[in-house]
Amino acid sequence: MDKFFKEAVEQAKKGYAEGGIPIGSVLVHNNKILGKGHNKRVQKGSVILHGEMDALENAGRRPAKVYRNSVLYTTLSPCPMCSGTILLYGIPKVVIGENKTFKGSEDLLRANGVEVIVLDDRECRKLMEDFIREKPELWNEDIGE
Amino acid sequence: MDKFFKEAVEQAKKGYAEGGIPIGSVLVHNNKILGKGHNKRVQKGSVILHGEMDALENAGRRPAKVYRNSVLYTTLSPCPMCSGTILLYGIPKVVIGENKTFKGSEDLLRANGVEVIVLDDRECRKLMEDFIREKPELWNEDIGE
Repeated sequence: MDKFFKEAVEQAKKGYAEGGIPIGSVLVHNNKILGKGHNKRVQKGSVILHGEMDALENAGRRPAKVYRNSVLYTTLSPCPMCSGTILLYGIPKVVIGENKTFKGSEDLLRANGVEVIVLDDRECRKLMEDFIREKPELWNEDIGE
Repeated sequence: MDKFFKEAVEQAKKGYAEGGIPIGSVLVHNNKILGKGHNKRVQKGSVILHGEMDALENAGRRPAKVYRNSVLYTTLSPCPMCSGTILLYGIPKVVIGENKTFKGSEDLLRANGVEVIVLDDRECRKLMEDFIREKPELWNEDIGE
């Protein structure tokens, strides 16, 4: 398994262990992790800290050229908010763990020239399946449903 | 002037006075402000706290039905990140101060059924024109350019 994707999965597991939503993400530039994060809705009472947003926030302020040469790893297909953020910063490539439990704005990303790779990873899917079964209301809240 | 829009402008001015990016926003439900905020890139070193995101974050965790009956006021046309967030939460109406200094993803919002009203407010435009002239690099950073 790709070491960066593995780190995103570790972040997702960390979120799950904290009683949160098990989605993790890592921003990588020049083969180096700039920031990692996981969904913080429960932990920080946040409505914007999805895994991808947390990873970007933890990466801190960066010049445009850094984002434009980075890859974002995320365990779940990115929602409209996270996809919009990927477009705002011009991140050219997104590696997604799975899109079976939730399908985000992959079409919007592709239509805007972003390379989207879906791994269909079994572990990511199981994490989300378990979580959604255990806390369906929390999950619905996180996706605005 | 609409009192809620006026509050968004106050938030933008507050951001400017703090040496930050002068964009403010207010989330309104049933004629009551749930949250207000302004861009915090400078103040918090944040790459995700645009005015709209700050207002939503300050409004706290809310059930889907609240967002679906809310109006988001913002002094500037919302970028792809903020537009994606509006879509995630199903906010049906957005009132925008101006879109001359920056045109965000209004078409994406409209294509997804969001009512978009642009006021073309002179004060909002002047705030942004002054700011962009004074700190062009900071502005470019905020929009990923």
